[in-house]
Amino acid sequence: MENEREKLMEETVELVVSLLEEKKYAAARAELLKYNEVDISELLSSVMEKLDLERAVILFRTLPKDVSVEVFSYLDIDEQVAIINAITDKEIQFILDELAFDDMIDVLEELPANIVDKILAKATKEERKQINTFLNYPDNSAGSLMTPDYIELKENMNVGEALAHIKAVGMDSETVYTCYVKDHGRTLKGIVSLRTLVVTDDTVPIRELMHTDFVYVNVYDDQEEVSNTFKKYGFLAIPVVDKEHRLVGIITVDDILDIIDEENTEDIERMAGVIDSTDKEYLDQSVFQHVRARFPWLLFLMVSLMVTGMIITRFEILLSQVICLVSYLPLIMGTGGNSGSQSATLVIRGMAVGEIELRDALKVIWKEIRISFIIGVGLSILNFAKIIFLDHESAAVALTVCLAILAVIMLAKTIGSMLPMLAKRMGIDPALMASPMIASTTDMISVITYFALASLILGI
Amino acid sequence: MENEREKLMEETVELVVSLLEEKKYAAARAELLKYNEVDISELLSSVMEKLDLERAVILFRTLPKDVSVEVFSYLDIDEQVAIINAITDKEIQFILDELAFDDMIDVLEELPANIVDKILAKATKEERKQINTFLNYPDNSAGSLMTPDYIELKENMNVGEALAHIKAVGMDSETVYTCYVKDHGRTLKGIVSLRTLVVTDDTVPIRELMHTDFVYVNVYDDQEEVSNTFKKYGFLAIPVVDKEHRLVGIITVDDILDIIDEENTEDIERMAGVIDSTDKEYLDQSVFQHVRARFPWLLFLMVSLMVTGMIITRFEILLSQVICLVSYLPLIMGTGGNSGSQSATLVIRGMAVGEIELRDALKVIWKEIRISFIIGVGLSILNFAKIIFLDHESAAVALTVCLAILAVIMLAKTIGSMLPMLAKRMGIDPALMASPMIASTTDMISVITYFALASLILGI
Repeated sequence: MENEREKLMEETVELVVSLLEEKKYAAARAELLKYNEVDISELLSSVMEKLDLERAVILFRTLPKDVSVEVFSYLDIDEQVAIINAITDKEIQFILDELAFDDMIDVLEELPANIVDKILAKATKEERKQINTFLNYPDNSAGSLMTPDYIELKENMNVGEALAHIKAVGMDSETVYTCYVKDHGRTLKGIVSLRTLVVTDDTVPIRELMHTDFVYVNVYDDQEEVSNTFKKYGFLAIPVVDKEHRLVGIITVDDILDIIDEENTEDIERMAGVIDSTDKEYLDQSVFQHVRARFPWLLFLMVSLMVTGMIITRFEILLSQVICLVSYLPLIMGTGGNSGSQSATLVIRGMAVGEIELRDALKVIWKEIRISFIIGVGLSILNFAKIIFLDHESAAVALTVCLAILAVIMLAKTIGSMLPMLAKRMGIDPALMASPMIASTTDMISVITYFALASLILGI
Repeated sequence: MENEREKLMEETVELVVSLLEEKKYAAARAELLKYNEVDISELLSSVMEKLDLERAVILFRTLPKDVSVEVFSYLDIDEQVAIINAITDKEIQFILDELAFDDMIDVLEELPANIVDKILAKATKEERKQINTFLNYPDNSAGSLMTPDYIELKENMNVGEALAHIKAVGMDSETVYTCYVKDHGRTLKGIVSLRTLVVTDDTVPIRELMHTDFVYVNVYDDQEEVSNTFKKYGFLAIPVVDKEHRLVGIITVDDILDIIDEENTEDIERMAGVIDSTDKEYLDQSVFQHVRARFPWLLFLMVSLMVTGMIITRFEILLSQVICLVSYLPLIMGTGGNSGSQSATLVIRGMAVGEIELRDALKVIWKEIRISFIIGVGLSILNFAKIIFLDHESAAVALTVCLAILAVIMLAKTIGSMLPMLAKRMGIDPALMASPMIASTTDMISVITYFALASLILGI
């Protein structure tokens, strides 16, 4: 149904834009309100992009108050900041008051200091303290993902009392589906799900229902660890505790869906030799930010390519005598790089999703040796035939090239599979040992292997 | 806390293995039961791996019935099949009866036909029909992910009646947090969350509470589309409808966490030139399966590398006169490949997570041109200095190499960013246009650019 819906939404954007151009704000508003809040925010983004911020803000202001807050929470952070900068202090205050706590923190983090100060000045002392604590958790930590708005139950409540409490406070909580029981020192004692509550008789005490062997994360845990815990246990929410084991917040699964993609993007970019310095989208990054993310690795890899070049210089006499050897150089280096990249990627990914552990190293090597031997022999035979029958070169040249291909594939696949594991062992992110790094390493090995074999077989 | 817990679990595995070796099954069972079901299944896997299947199965059988079913559901599919093959028909029947419907279907799909037939023989006609329908949904479709066990409410119920219904059937349902209202033709009419129910007075009719503008997926939609819908809306569950818009099942968010990783793995593997023919883990795939996944792309890329070689042959006269040009070949080809891979990866990823659309093509090209010009000039200057002062080559050679580097980086980044967009336009997965493909394409361009510039500048 996604495609039908997308088409429908594109038509709505066209319609809304033309209505706004004719200043028919009420009609435009009516079009938007046919959708749910997620879709309205998507429509509003498209309008901002196609028309201008001013008219999009006016449209945003015409939305009913409760809708506008939710729509705001789904906008991209730079769109949120643009709106904040265009509306009155009173409107800002309203939106921030109504936003879920974790969404509010995300907005505050992006706002200029003077606006944040103005907002904090209006908050109570208690609120200010809490906001400042949350603002100070490092990016990508569990603390930066959590919200303090959870349902708290007492262990001496019974189910009926608990349900009455949830009924009273349920709309202000991030989730009502997992509830938390603390002792007097604010230490988490147990967890009970709403499912358990609704299937249990009203008179049963919470004490008997709550799980006391619960899984939690620490406030400074990396978001990757948090998302791995969600994946492993299939939770809808997870409690976050501080160093003293006090419950300070919860993280819900809907925030984790984005984190999984973010972590994967980080891995994929590192695998391509891009430094992930910013969370901004491709198009939102400046040319200079892109250069800064890409230049260092290209420079680093260039050094290794220069070394490869210097190795070639050593073989200039050989090359000048059998110049046709040069024409097979891209084949041998390229196949080495491609073979190594395949192995490196499979091992990096296998480690990332927990399928391959460091203790599997020998199993991996043995597998890669057999795989690369079969592939190497296959590709060598094809090349031998091509060199003899198509290129009309000597059998000695064909033999040199084919043995080089076999050797290079085997070396590349072994190195490609081992470098990521070695990196992990040394505490370096294995994703850095992907295609560019492997290709540049195998280039060197390819050149040495190829020319050494040539010297030997051709006797030069 | 993950690390503490992992260490504790490793110790438990050691302890359980030694207890089993001494045939102290009751003590081993007691150790396992200190953990939750997810962890018990992980412990059991480790025991299987370290000891043997027989003793792990005996241990599994000693677990309380309700625990054993849940533990079973968290095991890997091949471990599940191993257990099924080692226990009695009666035990199999019990486990399958108690498993969640979607988990049961996953197990049935992997079992040999004769066992499946035996199981189906014992099911009622109605059950058999439903199981067969579910078994026939294609892999990776919404149908293969869904479960028919959801909470169904009537629109003329009031909240009190709805909660009483949930209390009665809640434990057999995949989730109780989203409930579904159908009309007489089994068409989905509305959705109501348990949160809404518990915060609303008992007398309010469901009709007034339910959302009728809900988002759904079709039973044949690809799992990638399903997971994108979850990411966009942050749902806990989504309804699945058939062609006639009848509600046939629901998908819950816990199953989507794994799908997001699976889809990312598929993309990453394709980006490294590995064909994703199987869902098996790296170590579980046979050498032959690995060869089949990797050989075709290496062969395909080899053809392009052969063409590059043939282009070099055209320039043999040039090369034999200025042999030092060969030593800069890896530098130029490698830098071209690396630059192109960076751009290709960023664009592929940007399109995958919805940050870049096809209509952004011109913006992307313009950005890449500026980025590559800055990077190209930077790297060229460094190389010029190196060639003059370290290699002591002529200024003409240095100029040739540097102009080639600049040109190749600019071409590689433009091609690298455009090929994935072109692929998407043509309905091909953009992930196939990543590092190996880009590197092999830019190799060709690098060689031609470099040698053409050399002929021109050196006048040969």
